[in-house]
Amino acid sequence: MNPESWLLLCRTVRFGDTDAAGVMHFPQLLHWCHEAYEESLERFGIPAAEVFPRPGSKPAIALPIVHCSADFYKPLACGDPLAIALEPRRLDPSCFEITYRFSSDGTAVAQGFTRHLAISTGERERRELPGAINRWLEASALKGGVQPL
Amino acid sequence: MNPESWLLLCRTVRFGDTDAAGVMHFPQLLHWCHEAYEESLERFGIPAAEVFPRPGSKPAIALPIVHCSADFYKPLACGDPLAIALEPRRLDPSCFEITYRFSSDGTAVAQGFTRHLAISTGERERRELPGAINRWLEASALKGGVQPL
Amino acid sequence: MNPESWLLLCRTVRFGDTDAAGVMHFPQLLHWCHEAYEESLERFGIPAAEVFPRPGSKPAIALPIVHCSADFYKPLACGDPLAIALEPRRLDPSCFEITYRFSSDGTAVAQGFTRHLAISTGERERRELPGAINRWLEASALKGGVQPL
Amino acid sequence: MNPESWLLLCRTVRFGDTDAAGVMHFPQLLHWCHEAYEESLERFGIPAAEVFPRPGSKPAIALPIVHCSADFYKPLACGDPLAIALEPRRLDPSCFEITYRFSSDGTAVAQGFTRHLAISTGERERRELPGAINRWLEASALKGGVQPL
Repeated sequence: MNPESWLLLCRTVRFGDTDAAGVMHFPQLLHWCHEAYEESLERFGIPAAEVFPRPGSKPAIALPIVHCSADFYKPLACGDPLAIALEPRRLDPSCFEITYRFSSDGTAVAQGFTRHLAISTGERERRELPGAINRWLEASALKGGVQPL
Repeated sequence: MNPESWLLLCRTVRFGDTDAAGVMHFPQLLHWCHEAYEESLERFGIPAAEVFPRPGSKPAIALPIVHCSADFYKPLACGDPLAIALEPRRLDPSCFEITYRFSSDGTAVAQGFTRHLAISTGERERRELPGAINRWLEASALKGGVQPL
Repeated sequence: MNPESWLLLCRTVRFGDTDAAGVMHFPQLLHWCHEAYEESLERFGIPAAEVFPRPGSKPAIALPIVHCSADFYKPLACGDPLAIALEPRRLDPSCFEITYRFSSDGTAVAQGFTRHLAISTGERERRELPGAINRWLEASALKGGVQPL
Repeated sequence: MNPESWLLLCRTVRFGDTDAAGVMHFPQLLHWCHEAYEESLERFGIPAAEVFPRPGSKPAIALPIVHCSADFYKPLACGDPLAIALEPRRLDPSCFEITYRFSSDGTAVAQGFTRHLAISTGERERRELPGAINRWLEASALKGGVQPL
């Protein structure tokens, strides 16, 4: 599989993403980051139900975000096309992080970052990352990320 | 207890509620409606955990919204103060609806509406409304709502 | 152009669309409706900047939503695929509405509705619909909508 | 004025803030941060229209966020009460940042951070912070923040 198929994603800035300054409201970038992470897993072949809870189906391991950050380089307006390059990285057996580089028409516009910790959903104690996430992290590391610009 | 304490609520339009047209983005009104419903129950004395699920504590009856609507009379800008008058009404033993009248500085600006159905959280079958919700509906009906304008 | 290319759209329910009941939080459907309307215009060939404001570029006519509603038939969980069939309809020279039929794996799951009024952005007085919107409405009416199920 | 009146704020976690894991969806914390910043200015006596754009009234200086981050220590469920302690700090004549310490029932649960840059709304060039923001920063610095725990 071409890594671009799971590590380089696209979306468009929508009207509801903006605020009265006319540009993307800043926390929206982190919503886009999480949606890109979900879409990346889906494209890699991991069903959402293996990672995220549904009514009547709760994975034994949850992956809550313990830290996030974002940097904003350019204002983003309604209709702007976005390319999102993901760089996932395992930190240790129970933790990984993802850097998300956003560009629009070839210009870097923003960067997001999330750190995820694997815990048991019952006791909320540290656990090893689920096998599916490890496969996605290893395949992503082999490719060394993608160069969107 | 004065009914205004649970049927007449206040909030302010915030920057993140607006879009690039400079005014409140329309689905935001329905977020405000649900938050007003939660705050009304809280002020009436019903703990959130009796009605809404938390990790490790799931009420036997869920109250999903099966229909909602909203009418928008005036644009709302960042900083505008809002009064929200709730009119809850039981339709039948398993169903209630709420009308939310929004005004700003004495002028009607919008109206929201939600219809809630009581179902068992397991089989998702119709059930009677929980006792706490019935008490809130009855106390609200006795007062005949409030006149905010 | 095949009408399906602008009147039948797809998306996936994401984790951030859900609430602690495990399913899509109800106002999210109206966010999806507006994003589907924007994507439909884009696919039909209307640039976002002709209809929606950007910094330094404000269309003379705004199209605020004056009424919206939604009906929810089935709970929607993270990862569920959605097909969205749009049925736009002109009501009079300054007003149009859109019905959005949501289905998942061939089953009707929800329906949304928005009514839009054309006004001048300065005086906020009723105006005729912009030419681009009229072309989109006429082409959509000719096709008689699409049958997604 | 007691600094707690503008630097120590309260809110409650609402159902729409949560996701299917049963707890607050992480970007929501940054929405709360911005709303706390707006409420702090309001309580200090600065009208929203002096800082944030409204239809027909655009401040000459905008204060976009160029960086933000968040740390999550404990899961937050629907109904949890939150205290938010703000620590605003001027970095240089055109830049300030705010640290937001969130606690619930006396326990630290999360921390947010935003950095704001003053720019002209037309050319988007660096400018000095508006006078009202400087007064708020100076009054906040004198008080040395508040100790919520």
